[in-house]
Amino acid sequence: MSEVVLKGKAAKKASYLMTGVTTEEKNEALALIAEQLIMDQEMLLIENERDLAAGKEKGLSDAVLDRIMLNQERIKGIAAAIHQVIELHDPIGETLESINKENGLNIEKKRVPIGVVGIIYEARPNVTVDAATLTLKTGNVVILRGSSSAKNSNIALISSIHRALERSALPVNAVQLIEDTSRETARELFRLNDYLDVLIPRGGKNLIDTVVREATVPVIETGAGNCHIFIDKTAEKEMAEQIVLNAKLQRPSVCNAIESLLIDPEWFRQHGSDLLKKLEENGVQIYADGQIREAYPTANQATEEDWSSEYLGLSISVKLVDTVEEAIGHINQYGTRHSESIITENSKHAEMFLQHVDAAAVYHNASTRFTDGFEFGYGAEIGISTQKLHARGPMGLAALTSSKFQIKGSGQIRN
Amino acid sequence: MSEVVLKGKAAKKASYLMTGVTTEEKNEALALIAEQLIMDQEMLLIENERDLAAGKEKGLSDAVLDRIMLNQERIKGIAAAIHQVIELHDPIGETLESINKENGLNIEKKRVPIGVVGIIYEARPNVTVDAATLTLKTGNVVILRGSSSAKNSNIALISSIHRALERSALPVNAVQLIEDTSRETARELFRLNDYLDVLIPRGGKNLIDTVVREATVPVIETGAGNCHIFIDKTAEKEMAEQIVLNAKLQRPSVCNAIESLLIDPEWFRQHGSDLLKKLEENGVQIYADGQIREAYPTANQATEEDWSSEYLGLSISVKLVDTVEEAIGHINQYGTRHSESIITENSKHAEMFLQHVDAAAVYHNASTRFTDGFEFGYGAEIGISTQKLHARGPMGLAALTSSKFQIKGSGQIRN
Repeated sequence: MSEVVLKGKAAKKASYLMTGVTTEEKNEALALIAEQLIMDQEMLLIENERDLAAGKEKGLSDAVLDRIMLNQERIKGIAAAIHQVIELHDPIGETLESINKENGLNIEKKRVPIGVVGIIYEARPNVTVDAATLTLKTGNVVILRGSSSAKNSNIALISSIHRALERSALPVNAVQLIEDTSRETARELFRLNDYLDVLIPRGGKNLIDTVVREATVPVIETGAGNCHIFIDKTAEKEMAEQIVLNAKLQRPSVCNAIESLLIDPEWFRQHGSDLLKKLEENGVQIYADGQIREAYPTANQATEEDWSSEYLGLSISVKLVDTVEEAIGHINQYGTRHSESIITENSKHAEMFLQHVDAAAVYHNASTRFTDGFEFGYGAEIGISTQKLHARGPMGLAALTSSKFQIKGSGQIRN
Repeated sequence: MSEVVLKGKAAKKASYLMTGVTTEEKNEALALIAEQLIMDQEMLLIENERDLAAGKEKGLSDAVLDRIMLNQERIKGIAAAIHQVIELHDPIGETLESINKENGLNIEKKRVPIGVVGIIYEARPNVTVDAATLTLKTGNVVILRGSSSAKNSNIALISSIHRALERSALPVNAVQLIEDTSRETARELFRLNDYLDVLIPRGGKNLIDTVVREATVPVIETGAGNCHIFIDKTAEKEMAEQIVLNAKLQRPSVCNAIESLLIDPEWFRQHGSDLLKKLEENGVQIYADGQIREAYPTANQATEEDWSSEYLGLSISVKLVDTVEEAIGHINQYGTRHSESIITENSKHAEMFLQHVDAAAVYHNASTRFTDGFEFGYGAEIGISTQKLHARGPMGLAALTSSKFQIKGSGQIRN
């Protein structure tokens, strides 16, 4: 039996044990994990060093090496994050609906764990701990599959988590890592329908596209963000500038940063050059349509590809649109249903935009950068879903839960 | 461009028009459809007759022919069902969460349509109208793909629906039928990720398994039901008998009927033969384990296959289990996560069963036959989900909705 199937079986078994654990037992286990990681930090750093050395030899970029890197401070940060998870309200057991039927049946819809959650992710070893603790908090069992570049770090982290779980009321197999990081094990996970209730990819567009294309298990797509801001005719100049600069520059590499600007022609005539200049002064490359380049010749010519590009860096596409309808149409055509914002003083246009743009989060007069589980007050974030089923937008703990109808009777039969 | 892609594109376009329609406009369109079906009934019956004639020639069974068959009364029933849908509360636009942040941002989670819903189904032409009206009521657009055996009936029903939509405020392409019923069009639907937000199979196990295995679009699995009743030591004889007979016999061909009985040995010694005799008197074939056959020799010998069989007819498997834990273990191993019931006067055992059995609906002292959208008071049923994401158990209108965060600000940017 392959590693994946063996661990799948063990996970399913552990998931049945998890239906009996209490909030206190889960929180106690989480505290033990936090403690153990600190206790084991010397071992963790040695194993992490092996990954870093191998990465350097393979010529990984400094940015990727930085993502893999652990140090005392980062381990402390990981442990602190676990204590934040402990503080979160446990959603399991909540009553979501209660129906009392005339025949005396009482039907309650209860929140329950999903069961076995698979998470497939890239370099960062902190995701190993993050994913494990959020799934444990919600009574789930997790199968993790990280990347080869963090393999030694991940194995070390999991052995530390296992040592903590051994001292807890939770089954040790509640957290398992697929150690073989070959493509074959990823493919096996994609089709592990007998044991896996959901698979969540966390990483770049390639990983997500592969999972969506190949997986037969249910997937939560945490997608890319080709996010737009539409500056309407009545947008206040200063507000528009501040929001655009924030949404583009505050952290350009993340999914809720904007990639594209749509601008009303009249607003552009009055303020457009000032705005584009400020972007350029901050190092942003501008890819613009023909009309904009007439007024602002230093911009590069945008191609069709630019409208659907998620640059994830210091580039932006810019286009004039004549109406709010045109802006909505453009976004629905090229956007990735993540986060979209309109800047306007016209409340009718704002309403139209909020209603008709098809995205997880739609904004009026605010930066798209707020699309985030912590900013929304969920205290955690499993990812940002860009699909429409189960969960959409920032996913807090509730996204890791399912429901179950419990029906209590006294002999009722159906007529 | 293929029929599927063309209709997919048209559906996506129509879905953007649907974001603007009101509850009144939707209900008006539904009333027009009900009216039009009655007006067109002569044409509908002629086209249905063609399917029936072709079906007879192909040697379809009487049961299948009955499923395909329309008559005046059935068309009247279909129209009446539409008026029931009109009466249902429209969930679209509901506020699911409201978060006011310290920085003045107002975040509202609103209920919105999913978008484009694909439904792939088998013989019954009433599903064509049922699926169309439930998706329209929730502001969705639907692409239907029925089976070849009801092709003419389905084309006629859709043309009737289109005539009604032409007189309504809704786009005509809000309802489309894939007329080519070859396997190729089904496969295209499975992978129509660019246009389809969800695919719901309605039909037998083969259809559902194929969709789950081959689809890359998100699927809601409306699965098979290998449902059990566990009769515990303290179960009241009469209650147990009534519930078992109801759950097995009231409608044996449906997914929430039971297929398997688990019985405490002591209860069996006292009352088992009486119960099995009553089942046999009602024409039920019994497949039992060795211990039961010693006491009740007319039962057939159960094989391993019987424990996982959904007979959908007058057969039942019967097994002795020593403890409630054993019953739970057996159900979690062989069940299909649909509906499971315990009959007991021991409230601790009932609690254990309700908590640890992994199924969409778990019962104490009631028949599994209640797992149904109408019985639960939803006024509609898209199907019964046996998966854990998005919707689990009987799906009412809410299962055909998604959500969207609408965020209103006054210039907020992220620090």
